[in-house]
Amino acid sequence: MSLESGTRRIRLDLGYDGTDFSGWARQPGLRTVQGVLEATLATLFRRHQPAPLLTVAGRTDAGVHARGQVAHLDLDEGQLLSLRRRSDGDSGTAPEVLARVLAHRMNGILGADSDVVLHSSTLAPEGFDARFGAVWRRYEYRVADAATPRDPLTRRVTVRHPGALDAEVMDAAARALLGLHDYATFCKPREGSTTIRTLQAFSWRRGDDGVLVASLQADAFCHSMVRALVGATVAVGAGSLTGEQLVRLRDERVRTSAFLVMPAKGLVLTEVGYPGDDELRARAEQTRARRALI
Amino acid sequence: MSLESGTRRIRLDLGYDGTDFSGWARQPGLRTVQGVLEATLATLFRRHQPAPLLTVAGRTDAGVHARGQVAHLDLDEGQLLSLRRRSDGDSGTAPEVLARVLAHRMNGILGADSDVVLHSSTLAPEGFDARFGAVWRRYEYRVADAATPRDPLTRRVTVRHPGALDAEVMDAAARALLGLHDYATFCKPREGSTTIRTLQAFSWRRGDDGVLVASLQADAFCHSMVRALVGATVAVGAGSLTGEQLVRLRDERVRTSAFLVMPAKGLVLTEVGYPGDDELRARAEQTRARRALI
Repeated sequence: MSLESGTRRIRLDLGYDGTDFSGWARQPGLRTVQGVLEATLATLFRRHQPAPLLTVAGRTDAGVHARGQVAHLDLDEGQLLSLRRRSDGDSGTAPEVLARVLAHRMNGILGADSDVVLHSSTLAPEGFDARFGAVWRRYEYRVADAATPRDPLTRRVTVRHPGALDAEVMDAAARALLGLHDYATFCKPREGSTTIRTLQAFSWRRGDDGVLVASLQADAFCHSMVRALVGATVAVGAGSLTGEQLVRLRDERVRTSAFLVMPAKGLVLTEVGYPGDDELRARAEQTRARRALI
Repeated sequence: MSLESGTRRIRLDLGYDGTDFSGWARQPGLRTVQGVLEATLATLFRRHQPAPLLTVAGRTDAGVHARGQVAHLDLDEGQLLSLRRRSDGDSGTAPEVLARVLAHRMNGILGADSDVVLHSSTLAPEGFDARFGAVWRRYEYRVADAATPRDPLTRRVTVRHPGALDAEVMDAAARALLGLHDYATFCKPREGSTTIRTLQAFSWRRGDDGVLVASLQADAFCHSMVRALVGATVAVGAGSLTGEQLVRLRDERVRTSAFLVMPAKGLVLTEVGYPGDDELRARAEQTRARRALI
């Protein structure tokens, strides 16, 4: 996994409207975020093959959105130098400068109205790994209830709940779930994976527009965990489950039909956290070793 | 224009994502908001023809959005009674109750993911006229500049300006335009129409998400006026025009190439104001008489 000599790692910060994507991960015959971005890279580096591939912090499901997704890719010297702009002269060949050009070039190919957008591209610090280096992920989930004015301008990112929801009760139930626990109740089982996670933040508030917004942060989320946690607290807010029952369900560590896994479209990956540059290399190696053992 | 006996006027409050509409006004062969809503009414009242037609407060252009649009329609007794729900019994036949059912029935036909949504339907007070009774209209316009993080989730309602914009300078320039003036500089001329308006509010601020938001209110806006006022203050924010020059251009009352009419997609009709019930009838008659004279 160490970089080949002359190869430089680039960090991409990006966002997307997930509505018209079949999720992040490349899949033959389907329009996915990774597929569209890698096709963009193939166009950009058509004279410098093979085109680079992407490694992402959070592989989002079909319909899930992202505002602060992070990915990385490795460019060889020829690819990096091909980003040079004639107007830049010699100063334009510094890797830091060339790396920043990548996002502009990709956005140019994607077009002004693209549903996936690069925020920035930067030369990654030594040891940076978008996936294994991430120390936390933060998500937001938006629910409109009977009291929320309907807004067609946000319908692509907001799930409607037909009844009334009590935001305060939901917030209390969410906070009661925080901490280091086995979240098997909320996870689609995956062979060889642990479901032990640290839920670092989980809160609900009703915004000025009447929409209930959940904010969640964990070291990592297992599959379906965010949407199951949201569904569980929505059940509490709707009165079909109490906060105490929910804590008990969590501690039983078995999947349940007491609440629903909420639809994808309300979910936005908002931010991914990384340690400072010094810790980066050590941490990426540790995480890789630990996950390989599981 | 007085109601036929047994006919009741209903006020509709609604919103739409204008992206996929060719504006409000019905046009053969094009998908318009009025066209879609009147088709919904034709379905709903297929046994009680002719189907009602809509009168709207603000006829928005292609691509313009609305959060607080207002329209009215008149239902005859058979149409009104056809909204009765079996479960309601006798109490369900009061016109106030039946009127409220209309929005639910229309939303049901439009579907859960519709890009046009009814907020409510209510029995209109005596003398109510969505178009001639309106005393002010309020719009919002959203511009992202070079300093705004790109957000694909709001790209359908936000226009990107490539350079940097100074929100404070734009706000000052906007406020300097307020008051009762001839706004011919900003209006597409229309035969037999005055361009004298009272601009009651016009301000700019940069929101937490980095997007610059203009808020504008006037008794009424002539055609292209909101987007021209926005374009003029954007030119000031970009440094290509001063606030003083802009006031001078307004006072010259001729169209100019010193600024652009901004694209439709950044514009949202947010609210329409009506007087209290007592004043309503008198005002609708006055306005009608005055406009007929012009």
